[in-house]
Amino acid sequence: VFKARMGLGATRSSGRCPCPWQCSLNWITFKGWVRSVRSQKEVLFLHINDGSSLESLQVVADPSLEKRDLTFGSAVEVQGKLVKSPHKMQNMELQAETIHVVGPCDIWSFPLKMKERHPLEYVRQFPHLRCRNNTLGALLRIRSEATASIHSFFQDNGYVHIHTPIITSNDCEGAGELFQIEVSWAKESVEKSHFFNVPAFLTVSGQLHLEVMAGAFTHVFTFGPTFRAENSQSRRHLAEFYMVEAELSFTESLQDIMQVMEDLFKTVTSTVLSKCPRDVELFHKYVAPAQKDRLEQILKHKFMMPLLLSLQWGCDLQTEHEKYLVKHCGEVPVFVVNYPYDLKPFYMRDNEDGPQHTVKCLSSAATV
Amino acid sequence: VFKARMGLGATRSSGRCPCPWQCSLNWITFKGWVRSVRSQKEVLFLHINDGSSLESLQVVADPSLEKRDLTFGSAVEVQGKLVKSPHKMQNMELQAETIHVVGPCDIWSFPLKMKERHPLEYVRQFPHLRCRNNTLGALLRIRSEATASIHSFFQDNGYVHIHTPIITSNDCEGAGELFQIEVSWAKESVEKSHFFNVPAFLTVSGQLHLEVMAGAFTHVFTFGPTFRAENSQSRRHLAEFYMVEAELSFTESLQDIMQVMEDLFKTVTSTVLSKCPRDVELFHKYVAPAQKDRLEQILKHKFMMPLLLSLQWGCDLQTEHEKYLVKHCGEVPVFVVNYPYDLKPFYMRDNEDGPQHTVKCLSSAATV
Repeated sequence: VFKARMGLGATRSSGRCPCPWQCSLNWITFKGWVRSVRSQKEVLFLHINDGSSLESLQVVADPSLEKRDLTFGSAVEVQGKLVKSPHKMQNMELQAETIHVVGPCDIWSFPLKMKERHPLEYVRQFPHLRCRNNTLGALLRIRSEATASIHSFFQDNGYVHIHTPIITSNDCEGAGELFQIEVSWAKESVEKSHFFNVPAFLTVSGQLHLEVMAGAFTHVFTFGPTFRAENSQSRRHLAEFYMVEAELSFTESLQDIMQVMEDLFKTVTSTVLSKCPRDVELFHKYVAPAQKDRLEQILKHKFMMPLLLSLQWGCDLQTEHEKYLVKHCGEVPVFVVNYPYDLKPFYMRDNEDGPQHTVKCLSSAATV
Repeated sequence: VFKARMGLGATRSSGRCPCPWQCSLNWITFKGWVRSVRSQKEVLFLHINDGSSLESLQVVADPSLEKRDLTFGSAVEVQGKLVKSPHKMQNMELQAETIHVVGPCDIWSFPLKMKERHPLEYVRQFPHLRCRNNTLGALLRIRSEATASIHSFFQDNGYVHIHTPIITSNDCEGAGELFQIEVSWAKESVEKSHFFNVPAFLTVSGQLHLEVMAGAFTHVFTFGPTFRAENSQSRRHLAEFYMVEAELSFTESLQDIMQVMEDLFKTVTSTVLSKCPRDVELFHKYVAPAQKDRLEQILKHKFMMPLLLSLQWGCDLQTEHEKYLVKHCGEVPVFVVNYPYDLKPFYMRDNEDGPQHTVKCLSSAATV
């Protein structure tokens, strides 16, 4: 319980508790960064955060332990006894015996201020400090849990993980938006030589490599960085992002693949909700209030697979169509299947369904 | 037991066993690729591999189930009953009721041949098929288990996983061997514009980004692709490889960091040995026979930290020195610590130890 409450920073000290019984029970060293200092006549209160959770640990100390460099932002090591807190707001507090300032912090030049909620635009100016911001800290913890959960999901289901190449000469879907790679030391030569003898690019998808691997392992996945050099600045375009891709052999039906996607999404979401409840709460409270209900909705319901009768045939789906579909289906993610042959790349399986001519293809839309 | 023995491919069928009791016990559908076909007068033997292990499952069938396209390399689905095998070589075998060839394979044009051990140089010519080779299959399964184990190790020890950027303008150690990134669509313009307004490169290390993160989370790690554009073709240089990097705050001693490295190495090695025993055995038998003893040695012993008294001061270690050190220390990995200040980059912590002038720096050597 203690460990879960306080994260890794709390390691049992080799020292002894100064109580009459010299017990080592609950006698710990806690390391982290000062989030607040409140000095009263008879007691000194500190809040210290070690990044393992959104919550800080309250430290209660004798005012004699206060020092000039014990400021907001400073890195400290506190030794003391972890006890049940008399306050309603927290379970535990640390009764400090010693406080050691490991790294001082000049509050005048430090750009983050105690108990202020800084706008993200402001925090962005300080890339070396922004991870101490609550919102970004929560985001990074959630991302870390989601990453671990994605690996476990596939591992538990017998998939072989493949590191598909990042540098590649293959442009997968034939899209033109590629980053090309050159060698800096070859730039000076008159005739520019390619490092790999052929033009090389950053991967846009590991799919073709994975399909080969699925021909030996039946179930494979990759989860790595992917790149798009699109000349566009929107929320829907990133130059570098992480993508989960999986391939399953011996499956004829899109239904099987949709089930894997749904299970993956639900498993990862549940893991994040149970492992980072406070971090998720912060987002529900301050960033995206409507998301809480949507997530609960998603976890409770089966994902949808709609028939697109009213859309003009052969016309690709735009963001607006996707949003409409999701709303129409009760705010759960929606799979769109069997796209027109002409809209999709060469490697999609032909449904051979006559005049409509579709391919076995799957995309999904969600507003979360 | 069955599932572990046969991997994921073996899913219980919805069909019913044709035994008098119509039990569904041990009635399965097994999907994989034919590794051998042996047709006898009274019985047809197949070996089918689904990539979940080096071992193939023996299928015993009535000769009437043989078909022209049931050849080496073909993809099949076999339904039948899994029973204890009378043969010593395997635990279980599958008594087939139906055999369905999902994907035929023309043995005349297929470059891999039944029961032949192909040299890796030969297999390399067929990148789309080489993962069906036993050695490469084993290698990829081991890599997948090692990858999962690295993620679990850090997760279990409370580290936050960080995706450090792949595209970066920061060249970390100041080495000149960088891959530079250009945008293909900007090539046609007379004045070549950078996508990111500044020259951008592929990362050589996420260290500086991790150090920033360690200032908020105490324990962080990354495990991603790393790139070096060295103009050299040796076993020790790769253009693209995966690197584990971790940063720990609140530690003064190299000893703590060495302990993490040793624990990581030992945990991952033990996991691989216990999860892929047959794959590891293949390497010990055919690829690196001496490695078995070395691995056992490594797991049993504490890693070494030698004092380098006999090496000329200020001279960097070469591969030969490292090999000698490891041999001298009984073939266990060796940490070399406190390098001369002048040999190391700017961000190493100065030991402030007078005329010797060293930095808190750690490298490791191992011959495995």
